[in-house]
Amino acid sequence: MSKVKVFLEEKDIPRAWYNIQADMPNLPKPAMHPATKKPVVPEDLVPIFPRGLIDQEMTRDRWVEIPDEVREIYKLWRPSPLIRARRLEQALDTPAKIYFKHEGVSPAGSHKLNTAVPQVYYNKVAGTKRLTTETGAGQWGIALSQACSFFDLACIVYMVKISYQQKPYRRTMMEVFGARMYASPSENTNTGRQILQENPDNMGSLGMAISEAVEDAVGRDDTHYALGSVLNHVLLHQTIIGLEAKKQLELVDEYPDLVIACCGGGSNFGGIAFPFAYDKIKEGAPVRLIAVEPSACPTLTRGHHGYDYGDVAGYTPLLWMYSLGKDFMPPGIHAGGLRYHGASPLVSQLIKDGIAEAQSYGQSAVFDSGVLFARCEGIIPAPESSHAIHSAVVEALAAREAGEAKTILFNLSGHGLLDLPSYESYLHKGLVDSPISEEGLKKAMANLPQI
Amino acid sequence: MSKVKVFLEEKDIPRAWYNIQADMPNLPKPAMHPATKKPVVPEDLVPIFPRGLIDQEMTRDRWVEIPDEVREIYKLWRPSPLIRARRLEQALDTPAKIYFKHEGVSPAGSHKLNTAVPQVYYNKVAGTKRLTTETGAGQWGIALSQACSFFDLACIVYMVKISYQQKPYRRTMMEVFGARMYASPSENTNTGRQILQENPDNMGSLGMAISEAVEDAVGRDDTHYALGSVLNHVLLHQTIIGLEAKKQLELVDEYPDLVIACCGGGSNFGGIAFPFAYDKIKEGAPVRLIAVEPSACPTLTRGHHGYDYGDVAGYTPLLWMYSLGKDFMPPGIHAGGLRYHGASPLVSQLIKDGIAEAQSYGQSAVFDSGVLFARCEGIIPAPESSHAIHSAVVEALAAREAGEAKTILFNLSGHGLLDLPSYESYLHKGLVDSPISEEGLKKAMANLPQI
Repeated sequence: MSKVKVFLEEKDIPRAWYNIQADMPNLPKPAMHPATKKPVVPEDLVPIFPRGLIDQEMTRDRWVEIPDEVREIYKLWRPSPLIRARRLEQALDTPAKIYFKHEGVSPAGSHKLNTAVPQVYYNKVAGTKRLTTETGAGQWGIALSQACSFFDLACIVYMVKISYQQKPYRRTMMEVFGARMYASPSENTNTGRQILQENPDNMGSLGMAISEAVEDAVGRDDTHYALGSVLNHVLLHQTIIGLEAKKQLELVDEYPDLVIACCGGGSNFGGIAFPFAYDKIKEGAPVRLIAVEPSACPTLTRGHHGYDYGDVAGYTPLLWMYSLGKDFMPPGIHAGGLRYHGASPLVSQLIKDGIAEAQSYGQSAVFDSGVLFARCEGIIPAPESSHAIHSAVVEALAAREAGEAKTILFNLSGHGLLDLPSYESYLHKGLVDSPISEEGLKKAMANLPQI
Repeated sequence: MSKVKVFLEEKDIPRAWYNIQADMPNLPKPAMHPATKKPVVPEDLVPIFPRGLIDQEMTRDRWVEIPDEVREIYKLWRPSPLIRARRLEQALDTPAKIYFKHEGVSPAGSHKLNTAVPQVYYNKVAGTKRLTTETGAGQWGIALSQACSFFDLACIVYMVKISYQQKPYRRTMMEVFGARMYASPSENTNTGRQILQENPDNMGSLGMAISEAVEDAVGRDDTHYALGSVLNHVLLHQTIIGLEAKKQLELVDEYPDLVIACCGGGSNFGGIAFPFAYDKIKEGAPVRLIAVEPSACPTLTRGHHGYDYGDVAGYTPLLWMYSLGKDFMPPGIHAGGLRYHGASPLVSQLIKDGIAEAQSYGQSAVFDSGVLFARCEGIIPAPESSHAIHSAVVEALAAREAGEAKTILFNLSGHGLLDLPSYESYLHKGLVDSPISEEGLKKAMANLPQI
């Protein structure tokens, strides 16, 4: 009998993160200050981020050393297993080999902890006492509250009000780790109070929660803000996924023909794909890098490549990225983590330059594949991760059609144990693929900043 | 930096389960047929269990080979990691070393899958098409529904009605794996219909659900019944936990002074403790084996050792075990998996003979330790498993007091991600340690069968 899981030992946890800025044929244009519309300089970020992270945001060095204190925490769950989905292969009757990197084994339940730990660490070193953040579905908030508990920092989470009410399990999990939770919009910030004055029943949005978290951080000397995706330093930290996966595939003498991950802000896609993008850029490796998004929020497949704000209020720098326009309101799908109007500038540039590609799928097909995967492999996937699973299934069936023994690697960015109500909807209520509002999209794209 | 996790490779998954019946100084008295009150013979069990499991229930062979088909499925999550809880040790400022075996990594989220897989396998071999079972909190039902999905058997779960309503996440998880769910008491059996006729609002109990599941199985040729704890073959399968843990401790040159697990029916305690009980019985190893139960259901610490039924209706054989009386109704605590009036005959006998010992704790102290563990190690423990954690904490603090560098091993039988509402109660509503009804206990004990 052959191996199902490919484990590495703790000593094999990478000692450095990989920075793709060192190797991209074209770098994204620089982030612009929202007020001055001039390129952001490190000093602009000092009220928000600690120096260690600002340096990582800007650096062009290929390798960035992982501090020992971070590697020590990584040992709680890393190296994460690489698993051969043999039972899924059999169910699909495909000659393709399907491997997945299981990031759901982290105590936070997702890949988000890979960046939460170093972000809190560099803040700790800088003397930060409190960290603020926003969370939608809750994966990022859980990761940051865990990391803050490990390093004994206070964690303040602005959770989008509708999620605060609908996802009590995730909210409670953050509280177990000691986080102070606010339903956003809240009475705790000017932004929140103003929104509530206009409409006391406002159920919030990620954009509003970001604005509240940033305001809370900027207003206090002991406080910084943390972001769970999009930015360069976040994707840098996530490259540990792809670096480990490469080593693990080498152990079983494999190299992927396809590397697949879902893409919201882009951190889990960048995390697994960048180390393989290196091979493609530098050595011409014929690997396809596929970012999978929901057709309900088709940033990479239908968005515009140019400058846009990261939040609704326009407090964040303007980023050079694919965007549907910050005012675009996607229909309510279960993969809340993929409902973001923009995408990481680094990922966007790779797509623009044809080094990576994008696919979009509707959620009912995505859930079909997610449930098939669960029944084969035993793991309930997060609805976000099921987008990657579905693409892997589609590609494995295409390999069967073509009679090609492709090797597929996808990232299982998180488990779906706290998303079981979405599965209940799928099983009992029928999932619909709500079409996006074409008029809304047109309007949001017309509002893109002109600079 | 030193290791946090001790991994084994898939080839190190044990090839045989350990049967403590081969080595016990005293065996429990034989199970008695509920009607004839004569010792159960294999033929009595044929309507309920497949031959492979009946043989395992009765055998005195020390080692029982694990079929390749079962080991192949075990590879989905086994060997499970042994983790050194360094951050917990630091928080307790104890010289004790604390290791835990993490059974929550199974796709079912608990140790229950260790026995669900072989139970379904032997049924598959015997030609069984449908398996029935009962579930309370849902851990066992999830494990059996997963195992049935792996081997393509139909799974019918009678879930105690109050849990069916209060634990929708667990219910949905079983449905994802294709189980047919009934809220018990149901209209699907004579037992259920009779109970509902008497009281349509009856919210069910584990004893009633067992009776329904057994009735459903006995009435159909294509159907067997499966039980998740108590019986010899179940504990046999769980010994894979202790066998792996021993190998892992050897790799880091350790042998435990204490082996700790929570105890409801006894399967996770027996699973981790029996391989060490061998050392104690055969070689006089000075290891303490501690079964931890809730003070709200103190079977081992306050029960009577003798014959009692396994279910409320009296359909099951009479077992030679500690029992509070089948009519004892424990107060509603969050560790639903530990609310059982009896305990495994094998575990009971080891306690009776002083080879193992029992402790009981109230749930508020147990949750204190569970949350401390979560904040240190990142893992949200099941309320059941938190009983083992609490005992480990108490013993580690005693080691600090005594200045002794004890080595403690405990079993983390499952994660608590689907128990987060219990944590919400703890954090926001205050947990109480409801005292048991002394009068109710006296009554139930007075009703113990006289044979």
